[in-house]
Amino acid sequence: MAKQIPYKVYLTEEEMPEAWYNVKARMKTQHAPFLNPATQKPCGKSDLTPVFCEECVEQELNEKDEYIEIPEEIRSFYKTFRPSPLVRAYFLERALSTPAEIYYKFEGNNTSGSHKLNSAAAQAYYAKKQGLTSITTETGAGQWGTALAMAAAFFGLKLDVYMVKISSEQKPYRKEVMRTYGANVVPSPSDTTEAGRRILAQFLGTGGSLGCAISEAVEKAVTTENCRYVLGSVLDHVLLHQSVIGLESKLALEKYGITPDIIIGCVGGGSNFGGLIAPFMGERLQGKNEIEFIGVEPASCPSLTRGKFVYDFCDSAKTTPLAKMYTLGCGFMPSPNHAGGLRYHGMSPIVSQLYHDGYIRAVAAEQTKVFDAAVTFAKCEGILPAPESAHAIRVAIDEALACKREGKKKRILFGLTGTGYFDLSAYKQYNDGTMTDRIPTDADLKRGFDTIPRCPANGNL
Amino acid sequence: MAKQIPYKVYLTEEEMPEAWYNVKARMKTQHAPFLNPATQKPCGKSDLTPVFCEECVEQELNEKDEYIEIPEEIRSFYKTFRPSPLVRAYFLERALSTPAEIYYKFEGNNTSGSHKLNSAAAQAYYAKKQGLTSITTETGAGQWGTALAMAAAFFGLKLDVYMVKISSEQKPYRKEVMRTYGANVVPSPSDTTEAGRRILAQFLGTGGSLGCAISEAVEKAVTTENCRYVLGSVLDHVLLHQSVIGLESKLALEKYGITPDIIIGCVGGGSNFGGLIAPFMGERLQGKNEIEFIGVEPASCPSLTRGKFVYDFCDSAKTTPLAKMYTLGCGFMPSPNHAGGLRYHGMSPIVSQLYHDGYIRAVAAEQTKVFDAAVTFAKCEGILPAPESAHAIRVAIDEALACKREGKKKRILFGLTGTGYFDLSAYKQYNDGTMTDRIPTDADLKRGFDTIPRCPANGNL
Repeated sequence: MAKQIPYKVYLTEEEMPEAWYNVKARMKTQHAPFLNPATQKPCGKSDLTPVFCEECVEQELNEKDEYIEIPEEIRSFYKTFRPSPLVRAYFLERALSTPAEIYYKFEGNNTSGSHKLNSAAAQAYYAKKQGLTSITTETGAGQWGTALAMAAAFFGLKLDVYMVKISSEQKPYRKEVMRTYGANVVPSPSDTTEAGRRILAQFLGTGGSLGCAISEAVEKAVTTENCRYVLGSVLDHVLLHQSVIGLESKLALEKYGITPDIIIGCVGGGSNFGGLIAPFMGERLQGKNEIEFIGVEPASCPSLTRGKFVYDFCDSAKTTPLAKMYTLGCGFMPSPNHAGGLRYHGMSPIVSQLYHDGYIRAVAAEQTKVFDAAVTFAKCEGILPAPESAHAIRVAIDEALACKREGKKKRILFGLTGTGYFDLSAYKQYNDGTMTDRIPTDADLKRGFDTIPRCPANGNL
Repeated sequence: MAKQIPYKVYLTEEEMPEAWYNVKARMKTQHAPFLNPATQKPCGKSDLTPVFCEECVEQELNEKDEYIEIPEEIRSFYKTFRPSPLVRAYFLERALSTPAEIYYKFEGNNTSGSHKLNSAAAQAYYAKKQGLTSITTETGAGQWGTALAMAAAFFGLKLDVYMVKISSEQKPYRKEVMRTYGANVVPSPSDTTEAGRRILAQFLGTGGSLGCAISEAVEKAVTTENCRYVLGSVLDHVLLHQSVIGLESKLALEKYGITPDIIIGCVGGGSNFGGLIAPFMGERLQGKNEIEFIGVEPASCPSLTRGKFVYDFCDSAKTTPLAKMYTLGCGFMPSPNHAGGLRYHGMSPIVSQLYHDGYIRAVAAEQTKVFDAAVTFAKCEGILPAPESAHAIRVAIDEALACKREGKKKRILFGLTGTGYFDLSAYKQYNDGTMTDRIPTDADLKRGFDTIPRCPANGNL
């Protein structure tokens, strides 16, 4: 008989994973390769290494190795903020009067406020190891930029963060955290790149966009000596790094003899969800469990539930390789929605393929209902969640209430990716009763779909 | 031979303290009693229970019991955010190349962002247990108000927070966290109390003060049925609750056979420092150790290093009982200084007495040097510290550097009370190079001392 699980389970440092989990090694159908948009040919190593670190490219293309070693230096840095706690939500269960058991893996106990630091740590280390002296990236809401600023400071790398100008003005404090860690934060569009100058000339006074910031960061990386570009979601190697979330969760649960029935995560680019489910999915793909995997996206940006599974650009500026994924179209403009990190038109190719193959269920959640769940959770469990994370809370609560109606005692695990300390203008809207839900109409979606490239890979050129 | 201590030590839930430590039971000289300012007679239970919860008053006056049980309901709530980690600062040691061992107890991993929740939890529970339906408090920077909002939500109490008006305008996000937890946040001065209306009539458009907010919160408590006032620092029962910090630290260190040579904490009202040192000081008072205890205060508000040990009011509005303590005078106005929580004119009577008796050393630190230490620490250890906490980091680094010069391998423990996520305007000043140090002149101090009451207890009336 297993003993009662405590409120929080922390693994010991000896128990922390020494290898990441590469779910692709167990996938029967690999996702389609990235394509060079000009040649329509698959991207190989030589297409990617001018932009990304070599080791990350190796990992991106690795479909073979189920486990990939975490270098000692990264494991050492992980110890500043990991292991993260696996929490049994006893107080939330009590508030819901549910027979379900609810568990969550909390990734927000670090200064970046989210799981993003797991991949930032790895990518900064590989950049340093390759002999680079600087890296670049873009950031919107700022969680990824903050995480990378911390990792760059730790490993002694120069970092330029192109931050969407309107965000850098609306979130001056996020910017200040990055500056405190020594990052150079450039409001984008800027006059430091060709791409930025072009946009500035064309749209005087623009607030910028993530697409433009990506273009600037990539240009800066490829035109600077010993510099590469670093990305915080979507790509396979980022999901690989995030598998540390799932590995720790699985080990902690196994210590108490617990197998979840349902695993829930929010999905924007898909890296946290992909990392959380990775080792559980690996077993599922071998027929070793029957876990239900649920990805939760905002109803305002419903890539999985209403998108198309086609080749599309990863950015709105159409500068990246083409990826086969669920997408709303690289030109899709989500309505204003405060769950900043989930406003992405596409989806991780790994998550897309698993969804396409029927291993994942997707749910779209409306913003006000997401905040209802966030506040219920905060009052019971103490943690003020990020709006992104609260999407997973919403569905975890809904599943727990379904268990109550049906008298079932399911075990629900969800990923709590981060804290909402820098999202309080959204909470203010909620508290003031001025928050609204805006779900795209079919006409909105059509405008987005029209921006999907017509090309041979999509069978329409 | 003890094994190497890991980066972080978390106690198990079974190891969490079941009783607080009451250092007064080991003090040879008790601090002088609170006095009723009108009668100059010591305050007894009947003077205090109209304002404070009964159980807190019992604890306030208890000089006998070395251990006071933590009720099961409070220990249960503690499990949402405790045990807190004891961290070995391996990376800071490496950056300083010091032979010293540096440890810190980190209290910032909760939504209030600080140790304040330890006492908020206890006081809200006792209020509920006494059958009260609401509580009131004041808050300046907002950490205490946030902590109490969380605890009130958990135990189902109504809460009115009188927030210094200028703070509520400058820190709208702190206010929003409190609102999210269901607290009613009233910018002070307000028209909801006699005291507030009087101030408003006298000083139209004033930004308010902590003294005024205290007066409003106390008035609201004593004029509302089933309501009491709750305070976040200075008083003995608050230090008692904070002893959980020291108890956990001591047990974690003992598991690895470690006794600190130096313990460092920042001091404002003194509750975190008093709680951190309590069980170690209890042994010191019995001659069982030779630990050096260092309280660090801002040079801009130097109660211990430049204040007087006399009877004074605890608030600037002169409405509280008189306390014998180190004080700069209840009318002392510190220069603008961003370490908000340390801008208090007085000091915990327990800490004052121990300092007076020679058991504590006090150091005053200048703000820019404090931020230098904060940034060094953030880059090594990952955590962005609160400006208050960074005072302790400053002196921990100075002591570690002294060890390096002298070739000594001392063991240094400091209290990291909280995170700086809501203090980024101060970091911005530091990053921009516009932060300054303002140390009070002797004339500034004299103006403060002139506000200390002339009374028989002070031997001058």
